Amino acid sequence: MKESYTDVLVIGAGPAGLMCAQALARAGVKVKIIDKRPNKVSVGHADGIQPRTIEVFNSYGMGERMLREGIQVHMAAFYNPGPSGGIERSGRAPDVNAPTARYPFEMTVHQGALETMFLDAMHSMDVRVQRSIAPISVNISEDKLVVKDPQAYAVTTVLQHQATSTTPNDQETVHAKYVLGSDGAHSWTRTTFGITMEGDQTNYVWGVLDMVPETDFPDIRNRTAIHSHNGSCMVIPRERDIIRIYIQLTEEDIKRVTNPETGRPEMKFCSPEILLDVANRSFKPYYIKPAGEIEWWTLYIIGQRVASKFAVDERVFIAGDACHTHSPKAGQGMNASMQDTHNLAWKIAHVLRGWADMSLLKTYEIERRKFAQDLINFDRKFATLFSGKPRTGDSDDGVSHEEFVQAWKTFGNFSSGIGVHYPESPVVNVIHQGTARNLIIGQRMVPQTVIRAADAWPFDIQDMLPADTRFKVVVFLGDLSEDVQREKVNILAQELEKSDSFLKTYPPPGVAIDAVFDIISIMAGKKVDVDFTDVPELIRPHWSKVFVDDVDFSGRMGGKAYSTYGIDSHGAVVIVRPDQFVGMIAPLNKVNHLNQYFASFRIGAAH
Amino acid sequence: MKESYTDVLVIGAGPAGLMCAQALARAGVKVKIIDKRPNKVSVGHADGIQPRTIEVFNSYGMGERMLREGIQVHMAAFYNPGPSGGIERSGRAPDVNAPTARYPFEMTVHQGALETMFLDAMHSMDVRVQRSIAPISVNISEDKLVVKDPQAYAVTTVLQHQATSTTPNDQETVHAKYVLGSDGAHSWTRTTFGITMEGDQTNYVWGVLDMVPETDFPDIRNRTAIHSHNGSCMVIPRERDIIRIYIQLTEEDIKRVTNPETGRPEMKFCSPEILLDVANRSFKPYYIKPAGEIEWWTLYIIGQRVASKFAVDERVFIAGDACHTHSPKAGQGMNASMQDTHNLAWKIAHVLRGWADMSLLKTYEIERRKFAQDLINFDRKFATLFSGKPRTGDSDDGVSHEEFVQAWKTFGNFSSGIGVHYPESPVVNVIHQGTARNLIIGQRMVPQTVIRAADAWPFDIQDMLPADTRFKVVVFLGDLSEDVQREKVNILAQELEKSDSFLKTYPPPGVAIDAVFDIISIMAGKKVDVDFTDVPELIRPHWSKVFVDDVDFSGRMGGKAYSTYGIDSHGAVVIVRPDQFVGMIAPLNKVNHLNQYFASFRIGAAH
Repeated sequence: MKESYTDVLVIGAGPAGLMCAQALARAGVKVKIIDKRPNKVSVGHADGIQPRTIEVFNSYGMGERMLREGIQVHMAAFYNPGPSGGIERSGRAPDVNAPTARYPFEMTVHQGALETMFLDAMHSMDVRVQRSIAPISVNISEDKLVVKDPQAYAVTTVLQHQATSTTPNDQETVHAKYVLGSDGAHSWTRTTFGITMEGDQTNYVWGVLDMVPETDFPDIRNRTAIHSHNGSCMVIPRERDIIRIYIQLTEEDIKRVTNPETGRPEMKFCSPEILLDVANRSFKPYYIKPAGEIEWWTLYIIGQRVASKFAVDERVFIAGDACHTHSPKAGQGMNASMQDTHNLAWKIAHVLRGWADMSLLKTYEIERRKFAQDLINFDRKFATLFSGKPRTGDSDDGVSHEEFVQAWKTFGNFSSGIGVHYPESPVVNVIHQGTARNLIIGQRMVPQTVIRAADAWPFDIQDMLPADTRFKVVVFLGDLSEDVQREKVNILAQELEKSDSFLKTYPPPGVAIDAVFDIISIMAGKKVDVDFTDVPELIRPHWSKVFVDDVDFSGRMGGKAYSTYGIDSHGAVVIVRPDQFVGMIAPLNKVNHLNQYFASFRIGAAH
Repeated sequence: MKESYTDVLVIGAGPAGLMCAQALARAGVKVKIIDKRPNKVSVGHADGIQPRTIEVFNSYGMGERMLREGIQVHMAAFYNPGPSGGIERSGRAPDVNAPTARYPFEMTVHQGALETMFLDAMHSMDVRVQRSIAPISVNISEDKLVVKDPQAYAVTTVLQHQATSTTPNDQETVHAKYVLGSDGAHSWTRTTFGITMEGDQTNYVWGVLDMVPETDFPDIRNRTAIHSHNGSCMVIPRERDIIRIYIQLTEEDIKRVTNPETGRPEMKFCSPEILLDVANRSFKPYYIKPAGEIEWWTLYIIGQRVASKFAVDERVFIAGDACHTHSPKAGQGMNASMQDTHNLAWKIAHVLRGWADMSLLKTYEIERRKFAQDLINFDRKFATLFSGKPRTGDSDDGVSHEEFVQAWKTFGNFSSGIGVHYPESPVVNVIHQGTARNLIIGQRMVPQTVIRAADAWPFDIQDMLPADTRFKVVVFLGDLSEDVQREKVNILAQELEKSDSFLKTYPPPGVAIDAVFDIISIMAGKKVDVDFTDVPELIRPHWSKVFVDDVDFSGRMGGKAYSTYGIDSHGAVVIVRPDQFVGMIAPLNKVNHLNQYFASFRIGAAH
């Protein structure tokens, strides 16, 4: 039997698996990614991309392509029954309610296009998905010394290669240091380790249609929620002239598509015609029909559930649909899945390089399981509102337009991915939250334009925080033309120079500081007055790393970084994690607390 | 002897020739482009990209790449002699002074990278530069009927192919409908047709150095003008850590690098060391030296001259350095050259397709020769200020910092390319300038964010005006919720439907309206109130072509299009030429004047 060795084996090449594989490949980690399907997804499936996901793609250098290829959704429209019984527009609102979103819109990119972005990125790093391969067994070593050694090949997986015209049906044993099971809602990995799904056992049934419509409906290119007396629909605009309609099936509809033998709704008992019929019931007095062929359709039958655990011995992890399922209409699934492994990848890289202790990996479940539970809670509330009977006229019964829109806004920061908030842990230390009042520790770094001191070129600070596995040390220096502040900065530089500074102690011997940390400084001042040469050399690794909090010359961008972040004239040091989340904030004179932060998860940390 | 036929033969594959060839190839015109050099430029040469040039690249779909590959220059710094005799900073200012620039900065992209953008675009259209080929004779037919027939192969050019290891030294006769001589300052085409260069016979001598500097100079990444008692320099930041320095040689310096036998400055009598020596004289008390190798250096010896004519019989055209030369430091050369052929290409395409009369081609010289003369005038004034002795202390003599900065600002709109203004001609009709007071007819369309009505997606109007050879009919509809205005728009739609409408008469029989025109409409109103379906179908070819003048949901973009353009509630029709220049403006009820505009240059127009 063939044997192979890899740092990380990724089982399942959907969005979660691909995000992980490309992130690890970028980090120089040896990764093997397999999928049981012979081909990637080409039509249909998930398509909603939330604002935070665009930021994440941008952090991997893939934002420009996503913006080029995707459709932007800016406006939501709401329809409710009017006096005549047919629907009428009750209002329009921004589709995204997240004031700090860098990209204040949702996007639709079909899953095939999205997967291609990952595949192209991986291709350029010589990593390819190996297809038509399914795992048949997986075991974590029972030797405790092996399991404790972060560099050991502790997980053994046997893979079955399906026979193709050129290759035989054979087996392969893979020895991996870590394994990711990103193998979907029916996850083999989860099942094999006996991890259960917890939560509501109710299953919602949704029909989904992708088509180019012929219609007189004026909100056909918006994200439109339709509540009628005859059912609920959601319209989502897609590439070219295509739209998607999510159609919630009523109990009556569900009976119509249920297999009497199994008692379950099944696609073979449904058809696009049935779904269109249900949709048209809601659309009245408007009509909608396909201008040509139906591009794709399906039935989603899904409950709201979270896996009881996300990891086994910090050696096997599950991510994406394998650990959380929820309704499709809030456009969360693919986003949550990719953010799971965006959270995990840098942690694996730090452990594999011998920088961080294996305990760092525990924070994956701490952070992402909490998120998944928040997501299910959100989804449950939203689904109730969405499925609720619309309120009309003088009746007190049912969900009013105002209630729905209020919920839409309330949930906006969360559903955009922007408001995701990780709890305290070794990598989220909130003791100095007051030093930057508006920069929430445990949330992602708020975007903000700052001006490069050497050349007055405006940059968004997020572009200085790429997903390159480095911690970013963002130093808000204050106004260096003031003697007192300049002195504080000089002392900070001296503290950072000391042998017990985290800059020296987190990287193991022989590893350069700038392989692990990127130091960025932001002065208070005016671009026409400050010089990049004003900043002490240790906190100025290159002229391009010094910024000033000012507007750009066009007056269109920048300014007020200090006030936006709630940082006063004394300055602050902000530790931004490799995934762009704020890990810690400290006053300039608390380098010792920063040292403690990194000591809590560095290699050999007591835990 | 080999013979070949082509629509357009382009002689010279520098920026002017490449811009023309790619524009024609995009338009589906058969083009052959040759160059006597065996390879494209790889280092040095021109590099300054002005704001309008970025807009033009964007109109060809190449803006994103330029923005990705180039360096942005936002800040200018000015140094003058201080009390100690050494230079000190007298101020900083925006590098670009052009309030309506969409990209309010200059860029540097080295000529090799720029040429690669064109070559890649051409490659995708299967057009390649044929190299090591020089023309040896060119003749325009003496048969008047042939010269008057826009489709005739009226120009015969004999080319000499230089022998290579695989091909012999042979000749080729090319029969072309039109020929472009974009063959540089020593243009063979210009000389062959006996066209003279007019203007100042004075030659300025500039040294140019590209290097990664080691320096203590804080403005090394800005566009910095240094006036010292010992000479003048200009610093321009480039890709990576490279900078360029332009060093104006004094009479003394010129003597040092002059060949005593020829009496002319020559590179073999100069060296980077000499240029660095001259530069360091100006930089004191700062120092500058190369951190490694000198990347590239040269001497520019150049006068300020314009060709006496730009075209022969509307069959042979010259463009770029072949028809205007000027000093390098204002970063104009490459920009002016590319805009020459951007102006010419769509006109050739319209004539070749049998849409426009050959007289349209006369507007190339009308528009671009005026520009070239404006450019020389600008360059002369700027050069005088730049070379002038700096004024210091209480002396009244020399050029003060204030004078220099004032001139910098005054010339900004012109030197950015934004303020370029074409005179009246068949394609620039100013009779209804008052209908859009702030949208200057004969200048490029001012960028402005508008909101797409169907989905509230904000777009810059320039992105609706690609260089696709179509005239854009931009209809400012006013507020359609007002009955009177809606009635005016209905009448406009009826007028446009009539058989004498320009939409029907400019395209020859058999050519679809939308092959020649793109109709874009912009409503007054609020995005949450208007529907794209409010617009009459004839002026709504697709849902994506209807916009509203409003801010986007983030409040960051858009609004005030009508007031920015000076259009009142009655609306306006704006004809934007394929090169994004405003050709004509008319009130909604003056379709007859629009008809006359197109009649003045359509095929068979009296002239």
